[in-house]
Amino acid sequence: MDPLEARIRAAVRDIPDFPKPGIIFKDITTVLRDGPLFADIVDAMVAPWRRLEITHVVAIESRGFIFGAPIAQQLRAAFVPMRKPGKLPAAVRREEYDLEYGRDALEVHQDAMSRGARALIVDDVLATGGTAAAACRLAQQFGVPIVGCAFLIELGFLHGRDLLGDRRTEALVRY
Amino acid sequence: MDPLEARIRAAVRDIPDFPKPGIIFKDITTVLRDGPLFADIVDAMVAPWRRLEITHVVAIESRGFIFGAPIAQQLRAAFVPMRKPGKLPAAVRREEYDLEYGRDALEVHQDAMSRGARALIVDDVLATGGTAAAACRLAQQFGVPIVGCAFLIELGFLHGRDLLGDRRTEALVRY
Repeated sequence: MDPLEARIRAAVRDIPDFPKPGIIFKDITTVLRDGPLFADIVDAMVAPWRRLEITHVVAIESRGFIFGAPIAQQLRAAFVPMRKPGKLPAAVRREEYDLEYGRDALEVHQDAMSRGARALIVDDVLATGGTAAAACRLAQQFGVPIVGCAFLIELGFLHGRDLLGDRRTEALVRY
Repeated sequence: MDPLEARIRAAVRDIPDFPKPGIIFKDITTVLRDGPLFADIVDAMVAPWRRLEITHVVAIESRGFIFGAPIAQQLRAAFVPMRKPGKLPAAVRREEYDLEYGRDALEVHQDAMSRGARALIVDDVLATGGTAAAACRLAQQFGVPIVGCAFLIELGFLHGRDLLGDRRTEALVRY
């Protein structure tokens, strides 16, 4: 196993029955608590995209911000926050998605990206893929290429990757 | 005026009557949309703290994550998310604070910091100081030194700085 992957696996904390019974939540705050590990993670998450002329890093509120912001900074790319409804102050585009019970939505400012942009979608964990797929659809509303999707963790047994089409999808650790 | 400050002032967007009538909201998404500007901002926000042995960057959900995470990465410091109630999966410490109407609270994991830590508090905007002061009180529950507080913007006319005591408080732009 890659040494960085081993450090991440050792640092992730399993929380049983969060946010509800039967779910084992992958808590990444114990990863963030190790400063050199967090720094190395960001470097590793940036690496696959360095030569791909990413202009906009689109991150999903709010744990996606923790990885998306330093990735944007390293690439000198714009940072585009995708937020829960009602949080952004100017005119937005919106995309809804299904939850196990009910629906939720993501919003992004209408002027967040323009022609010529090349977007990278970032979040902490790829689980069922519902949120990430909504983020991709929302980015696609701008008519710009989505170069790929970057995650710290992929829960492979939930097959979220299947919802993201054939675009490049990278994760440092896969369960 | 410092050239970076001029670029930030030119990029911040005023949104009248958000989140409620009579408030002029400082929208920073138009700053983040300029990749080189965002990268230069993070470098400038890190600069005052480089030689002060910061071990933990404590950032306030969720816009504080956008600046706190790349600052932590550059310092190779731990990243500590302070979140709204109910978001963190493990045992938390909690600090309440007054809003104009009612109260809100911040939470942080009980194991986020231990002896030997030296904390820097980060958020996007220092306004009335209520949230930042609560963040400082919450960090103080760990009995570790709070080296200072870093913001992109300070709304000087709201005197939030007065709530932060005599600890060092830095902002790149002051209105």
